[in-house]
Amino acid sequence: MNPPPASEQTFRAIDVIRKKRDGVELAASEIEFFVNAYTNDKIPDYQVSAWLMAVVLRGMTRAETAALTDAMLRSGEVLDLSSLPAKKVDKHSTGGVGDKTSLVLAPLAAAAGLAVPMISGRGLGHTGGTLDKLESIPGFNVNLPVAEFRRVLETCGCAMIGQTAEIAPADRKLYALRDVTGTVESPYLICASIMSKKLAEGIDALVLDVKTGSGAFMKSEKDAAFLAELMVETGERMGKKVVALITDMDQPLGNMIGNALEVVEVIQILRGEGPDDLRQLCIELAGWMLHLGGASDSVAEGKKQSEKLIASGKALDKFRQMVELQGGDPQTIDDPQKLPQAHSTIIISSPKNGYVASLQCEQIGTACVILGGGRERKEDAIDPTVGIMLRKKVGDAVSAGEPIATIHYNEETRAARARQLLLSCYQIEDSPPHAKRPLIHRVIGTPGEKN
Amino acid sequence: MNPPPASEQTFRAIDVIRKKRDGVELAASEIEFFVNAYTNDKIPDYQVSAWLMAVVLRGMTRAETAALTDAMLRSGEVLDLSSLPAKKVDKHSTGGVGDKTSLVLAPLAAAAGLAVPMISGRGLGHTGGTLDKLESIPGFNVNLPVAEFRRVLETCGCAMIGQTAEIAPADRKLYALRDVTGTVESPYLICASIMSKKLAEGIDALVLDVKTGSGAFMKSEKDAAFLAELMVETGERMGKKVVALITDMDQPLGNMIGNALEVVEVIQILRGEGPDDLRQLCIELAGWMLHLGGASDSVAEGKKQSEKLIASGKALDKFRQMVELQGGDPQTIDDPQKLPQAHSTIIISSPKNGYVASLQCEQIGTACVILGGGRERKEDAIDPTVGIMLRKKVGDAVSAGEPIATIHYNEETRAARARQLLLSCYQIEDSPPHAKRPLIHRVIGTPGEKN
Repeated sequence: MNPPPASEQTFRAIDVIRKKRDGVELAASEIEFFVNAYTNDKIPDYQVSAWLMAVVLRGMTRAETAALTDAMLRSGEVLDLSSLPAKKVDKHSTGGVGDKTSLVLAPLAAAAGLAVPMISGRGLGHTGGTLDKLESIPGFNVNLPVAEFRRVLETCGCAMIGQTAEIAPADRKLYALRDVTGTVESPYLICASIMSKKLAEGIDALVLDVKTGSGAFMKSEKDAAFLAELMVETGERMGKKVVALITDMDQPLGNMIGNALEVVEVIQILRGEGPDDLRQLCIELAGWMLHLGGASDSVAEGKKQSEKLIASGKALDKFRQMVELQGGDPQTIDDPQKLPQAHSTIIISSPKNGYVASLQCEQIGTACVILGGGRERKEDAIDPTVGIMLRKKVGDAVSAGEPIATIHYNEETRAARARQLLLSCYQIEDSPPHAKRPLIHRVIGTPGEKN
Repeated sequence: MNPPPASEQTFRAIDVIRKKRDGVELAASEIEFFVNAYTNDKIPDYQVSAWLMAVVLRGMTRAETAALTDAMLRSGEVLDLSSLPAKKVDKHSTGGVGDKTSLVLAPLAAAAGLAVPMISGRGLGHTGGTLDKLESIPGFNVNLPVAEFRRVLETCGCAMIGQTAEIAPADRKLYALRDVTGTVESPYLICASIMSKKLAEGIDALVLDVKTGSGAFMKSEKDAAFLAELMVETGERMGKKVVALITDMDQPLGNMIGNALEVVEVIQILRGEGPDDLRQLCIELAGWMLHLGGASDSVAEGKKQSEKLIASGKALDKFRQMVELQGGDPQTIDDPQKLPQAHSTIIISSPKNGYVASLQCEQIGTACVILGGGRERKEDAIDPTVGIMLRKKVGDAVSAGEPIATIHYNEETRAARARQLLLSCYQIEDSPPHAKRPLIHRVIGTPGEKN
């Protein structure tokens, strides 16, 4: 249902701009007017960009942030999933390198009896995107119409698609403008953008994975925690159960970076295999999803249940079922060799003996983009087969000549550039690093938690 | 939203926006790129408005302000008046109610042997404009081509016209955008706008009259002084002699408000008559113009010389000569009754005995707009005949029923509204006001002054 047309007579765009410029708190009705009028082409870009810059520099109160989120959410369709008996739960990550947890979590939570109506995005810059990863599965369709999305969700408890034209059109229009006017970097605008899209899914609860470290948008834990608190409070003001985990993105998550390669690692995790860090984070996030969705009495209980659903193969079954329902080849799940593969590989060896002291995370993401596995600009095509397998990560001992990473590539010149960059990402020291960064830094917002 | 084509640009607009957003000082070359690209339609409005808002909220250094002024100045034609032997001097006022000093000062300084190439603006909102006042003289043409402007200047030493398309086109484009994006109110942008246009006149020296008080744009003396210092330093960085007087606009200047009425008062001053406050300010500003232009050894000397030029009738002769050269009827100067007059007048009487404690200056300007003597929007036409004559000003004793003002009008309904507003502008108390505000608050920047 569309919101009623903005009452343009009541407010003037210039007054809303001036108020924000002068640091005066805007009323919810003023924010609603501004967002609706822009969505309906009643306010020109040049007024909105001035307002956005004022928001970046003046900030917003919690009430303003919630009002902005609400107006953006109601600029389009809000899914009504009340006919589904299951609790609707989703998770969202602020993005990083090698972060493929969504592909594990949607079937895992569905296997626990929850409904996961997940609407995701594509990769841009050094970060990967859930849709790109899913599309590396031959036949997988992320562009389902809403009715079909609902049918998949009803059938198997989870469905994963891209943003439709009906969901939060204000966000699409605002984001395009922010992108070219230096107004992306505001926690208030980031919060409203994320939360408006997620809450349009008609969910009851949301688990946020806010990344921090050299490969995250929020490099410092302080900035990550600020955004996390903002999103949690915004969600709570709108009557949802929301929790945010501040998690580490100072090195890539898991060992695989690249679309088909990451699907392979997802299958490993769902089989009870795969790297420890990725498994640990998936179990932690799943524990929170199960708990917030009422499938478990505590997070600890939810984690145990998640481990059992993996051990029993039920989570993998859900994934296979969803892949098939969305047009993907289910055989790839049982035989990942059937996923598309790059023509060639090269192994990168350690130049010396020592320990991996750090990994330049953002640069590793960029190396994957160089190979063709990511996008510099939105309109770029991607190669699903290419990527990087990290064979050594932070803290690992290495000997001179020992393999530290494998590059999967299709073009020699790209591989040569990626190799050079990747080598420079490994900082190798004589002694092991003093302290290891935790995987989970903090949990923010614990509604009714009994951990 | 497509970003503008990169073409052969050395800089990217987005980087200039981000730098200013983050409070990093911009290089002169970056500001020059930004202004030139915008003037030539290479950067869209929505990027420039975001940048303008960042400037409003982050401010500018003195070097940035000078670079912006310089880039705007050089976006169009800079008059080359080097063939005129006389020193070129101008004055500029930040605008107010009843401020008609320019019409006195241009002929007065010309009578002292200086050249005054004055390019002025129109009134908007509660403030009047020099061009509108001049156009109330039948036949007076403010739209002279540059060649004709130069000829008048060479012949009589002063000429007064409106901004041409060739002068600072960047300012016209930027101002139109600032007007609709809440980015007018920045001393840095105001400084660059004023100084770029004035310095494009090819002048040697400039006297600035920065108004403060209830009828001024800068209500507080602190804000007025900040803008004044900014303009003085910007002018000096560009090799000009500049001084700024902070003068009072807490009540209207002189007694007449309205276009033809103000010309009458100008003629009174040039005849050695008229109200004390207006005469005093004209003499003070003229003293500075003569001194900065080298026509007198000191400001005091310049003031004495100005008084003599009025007493001898030479200043009035110059005014008559300029009016005639610009197509105006010179008979109006000798017989102001020949200026256009409103059909009717009404007298406003004091409701009680007492003293005028204050006059709401901005509202008096608005009363003149209501009569049709000013503009609410740029495209409005104005009636040159209507206006207000103040018969009592701050500090004057009044008796109940005694006339305090006269309204000159052509439409009954407008007159009734103006009367109501005007009555509310007079605050009448039992005892006289304790302290009178000075007419001249401060002088800022005294290059080589021997007062």
